Amino acid sequence: MIILGIDPGFAIVGYGIVEYKNNHFRPLEFGAVTTDAAMPMFDRFRSIYEDMNQILDRIHPDFMAIEELFFNSNQKTAINVAQARGVLLLSALNRQIPIFEYTPLQVKQAVTGYGRADKTQVQQMVKLLLGLDKVPKPDDTADALAIAICHGHSYRPGLPKV
Amino acid sequence: MIILGIDPGFAIVGYGIVEYKNNHFRPLEFGAVTTDAAMPMFDRFRSIYEDMNQILDRIHPDFMAIEELFFNSNQKTAINVAQARGVLLLSALNRQIPIFEYTPLQVKQAVTGYGRADKTQVQQMVKLLLGLDKVPKPDDTADALAIAICHGHSYRPGLPKV
Repeated sequence: MIILGIDPGFAIVGYGIVEYKNNHFRPLEFGAVTTDAAMPMFDRFRSIYEDMNQILDRIHPDFMAIEELFFNSNQKTAINVAQARGVLLLSALNRQIPIFEYTPLQVKQAVTGYGRADKTQVQQMVKLLLGLDKVPKPDDTADALAIAICHGHSYRPGLPKV
Repeated sequence: MIILGIDPGFAIVGYGIVEYKNNHFRPLEFGAVTTDAAMPMFDRFRSIYEDMNQILDRIHPDFMAIEELFFNSNQKTAINVAQARGVLLLSALNRQIPIFEYTPLQVKQAVTGYGRADKTQVQQMVKLLLGLDKVPKPDDTADALAIAICHGHSYRPGLPKV
């Protein structure tokens, strides 16, 4: 199965596409959709939507796996991340691509076997599991690949959708 | 000009469409887009998007006026309102409909002339300004009409977009 992992945001949307077959992961494409801070926020949402549509139409993933949101300190940032996430979800919903959500704890546990693993440990496991030369940059891309791996390890056909 | 006012949400999206001409408001259509609490959240987002697309394609408003979000107590609710709002914005962005955002304070001030007006005062002014027999229900619909009126009173061509 082909899994698109997404680390949602409005400045940087990390994405990572992996194939998972016979208990083995193969990276297909990874990177980040970015928007210019000088653009009006509405244009940034629209730009994210268009870039994500292009990725989905090129790759046709079987699943979107996306990180659950938890709000922290900055309210304005949190609202915009959530609005951008709504746009990203819609992009998959429009194409009937099943979406699965994972918490940071689930991702850490699925990738490293340890829920308290730190960022570096998660990134090293991503590099190892995907047979990469180095840890993908930016962090959002590495996170997105971790989420995709989490889905590969967690998903069993027939399980109800989140 | 034809203004679509939106009170964003994921269970109830209030909307109100008014024509504003010669300092006079005329109600064209108002109501609420609702989603079933039993539906998965993703399906609710998609349903909101489809319903809003239909409204926009039928009415072709010149502007979307939408309430700014402020987060309060319930984090999960807040995240879902923001995600639904992202979907609503996209619906207008896809059609190049200019979007304007107003705070609850701005809406109260524009509709009643008084920033500390209570809900009932705002609703009575909406009824009066639109020449309605009674206050529109649910509250989300009355709020959406208030936001549309706020835009009519606030917007001057040539002003920069929010």
